[in-house]
Amino acid sequence: MSTTGITFPAGFEAAATTAGIKPSGNPDMALVVNNGPEFNAAAVFTRNRVVASPVKVSRDAIANGQLKAVVYNSGNANACNGTQGDKDAAAMQTLVAQTVNVEVRDVAVCSTGLIGEMLPMENVTAGIAALGEGLGDNGAQAAAAIMTTDTVRKEASVSKKGWSVGAMGKGVGMMAPSLATMLVCITTDASATSEALNDALRAATAVTFDTLDIDGSTSTNDTVILMASGASGVEPTQEELNDAVFQVCSDIADQLQADAEGVTKRVKITVEGTGSDTQALNAARTLGRDNLFKCAMFGSDPNWGRVLAAVGMADADMDPDNISVYFNDQPVCLKTTGAPGAREVDLSGTDIDVRVDLGTGGEGTATVRTTDLSHDYVEINSAYSS
Amino acid sequence: MSTTGITFPAGFEAAATTAGIKPSGNPDMALVVNNGPEFNAAAVFTRNRVVASPVKVSRDAIANGQLKAVVYNSGNANACNGTQGDKDAAAMQTLVAQTVNVEVRDVAVCSTGLIGEMLPMENVTAGIAALGEGLGDNGAQAAAAIMTTDTVRKEASVSKKGWSVGAMGKGVGMMAPSLATMLVCITTDASATSEALNDALRAATAVTFDTLDIDGSTSTNDTVILMASGASGVEPTQEELNDAVFQVCSDIADQLQADAEGVTKRVKITVEGTGSDTQALNAARTLGRDNLFKCAMFGSDPNWGRVLAAVGMADADMDPDNISVYFNDQPVCLKTTGAPGAREVDLSGTDIDVRVDLGTGGEGTATVRTTDLSHDYVEINSAYSS
Repeated sequence: MSTTGITFPAGFEAAATTAGIKPSGNPDMALVVNNGPEFNAAAVFTRNRVVASPVKVSRDAIANGQLKAVVYNSGNANACNGTQGDKDAAAMQTLVAQTVNVEVRDVAVCSTGLIGEMLPMENVTAGIAALGEGLGDNGAQAAAAIMTTDTVRKEASVSKKGWSVGAMGKGVGMMAPSLATMLVCITTDASATSEALNDALRAATAVTFDTLDIDGSTSTNDTVILMASGASGVEPTQEELNDAVFQVCSDIADQLQADAEGVTKRVKITVEGTGSDTQALNAARTLGRDNLFKCAMFGSDPNWGRVLAAVGMADADMDPDNISVYFNDQPVCLKTTGAPGAREVDLSGTDIDVRVDLGTGGEGTATVRTTDLSHDYVEINSAYSS
Repeated sequence: MSTTGITFPAGFEAAATTAGIKPSGNPDMALVVNNGPEFNAAAVFTRNRVVASPVKVSRDAIANGQLKAVVYNSGNANACNGTQGDKDAAAMQTLVAQTVNVEVRDVAVCSTGLIGEMLPMENVTAGIAALGEGLGDNGAQAAAAIMTTDTVRKEASVSKKGWSVGAMGKGVGMMAPSLATMLVCITTDASATSEALNDALRAATAVTFDTLDIDGSTSTNDTVILMASGASGVEPTQEELNDAVFQVCSDIADQLQADAEGVTKRVKITVEGTGSDTQALNAARTLGRDNLFKCAMFGSDPNWGRVLAAVGMADADMDPDNISVYFNDQPVCLKTTGAPGAREVDLSGTDIDVRVDLGTGGEGTATVRTTDLSHDYVEINSAYSS
């Protein structure tokens, strides 16, 4: 049995293959199958209004709260391919249903790669046949096959009393030269209703993937799926389920942040002292997306003026004369005025902690994780797509 | 008489000096004086809620629609300096009023430079005295003295029948290592009420400076001031005034875009086919601020998928299946699907024109100017502030 990943929980098999979608010749298709006895599932998808064809297919599939299989391809997003793209995504779903002998509606489809290129369906068809032959304890191989510009595969797991949760993930936000997207698959052998799974997944993603903000971009393909086999026979409480799902999501989010393209700094931004958690999140996101702030982080520059200039534009309650900023717990700005020694704070380490108090005395608080804006980010993302 | 700039219209004098605020030893203070016979004026300021002390002073000064002088310093933003910062900005105002013999409330103050450093008031005081001695036809010198990381001074003018408009500007958005801010001064010898000036200035800035969006950041100090001396004796119609003020604003905005830090591409984004001009502006801004799109522009990469992914997140009406994208007037995406030859479009030139039709058939349209995201942008903005 796997020690981590999607085949760590009982009741799941996986397969990976090289279908020839990626020009590199690396593995580019994966399949995850839930062998039951239960098939409850939940999913969250991109909020982008331009959605890839596989997202449309998967949204329909999850509507009844059940999934038995998820097929993945990397190297091609199957996004913005018109009616043909929709047909190809539906064909992938049908082929997998036939291969693993389930209903069409029990299959979700996830794709990641370049937008606007037609899927090579001959390769995909042969790939799905190979995936059907290769099912087994292959979570690690599946995690490798969904990678695009990821430099390492991302897997996680957590063991509870008699049950467990496993996960794999790739990408983060829109990070790479049209070859990114965040795809995450979470498996558990707990027994849980689709409602319970949905609650656990939404609670976990809200504070993990949703607050991991590298460049503010949102892919057309982002998909996080949670499937429960019930194979452990254990039905955890909602709280226990929430906690376990949160743990693997947090672990995968950490790995995504650490492997983000061109990253030299991991930056954690906490905003407090504003009207609500939503306002705090607005302000934290505004700061996390500010290029001048991100460049300063790249330069290990304790330039707190940029923090003030950025949060001053945020949709959040604030007292403009009572804003405080802390870098690595050292005050650099108090009451919107520089603190002694502010320019000498050491930000040379890889991890930088930024805390902003908007000064209203309000209870709102939120944390966002982001990265710096580096030369490598520009280099990777300016490379020619074709 | 100057051939362009703020002393091109009759009734204005300017001065520049080196007060020693900038470590470089370059000129760092300027003064513009309206000798009348009229003193009507208008101004627009940063929308940032964290505002520099000089902005507070200038907002109060313009409240009665009159200004007789504007003093500028570069090298120090006098922002986030608490009560002392407010006192220093007020002291600058008072010193200038004494020097040029006007009321305190007739003087506006503009500062640009690093946030969170106290102004060296001894230098500033001596500088103001020198400015008072040096008043004359010195628009060009004043334009040079307000530069921070600008590589060239920015001046503009337009001549009408018997009257004219002149302008100087510096910076653009928040572009440089804490040393930016957009400051613009516009002068005219037309006779115009402060209401007419206000209308002309707001109409012009809405479609020039407000749609020039380099990195989405907004300075604590941005200020655009328009003063009318009435020295020509000509009272133009509102339409004539609007047109002339728009022309100099557009000219200065072009110069700001061309001189933006690290720029290798000038990108013009037009969005149409959505519910309103405001929605079109939202979508154009969202695209203009998308780092992945900006990196693609740097790489001359016709990666239209990033355009779709970016506008799909915008707060604008769209038909997700009917979006069209044109690069330099060539269709690269029609009905949300790649157009033939899309990957071969030549974007190697400096100017790139991007047009996006959101496909609803709506009348909304807007244009935003932005730049690419280059290595130099990261380099310039990651340099240590202190």
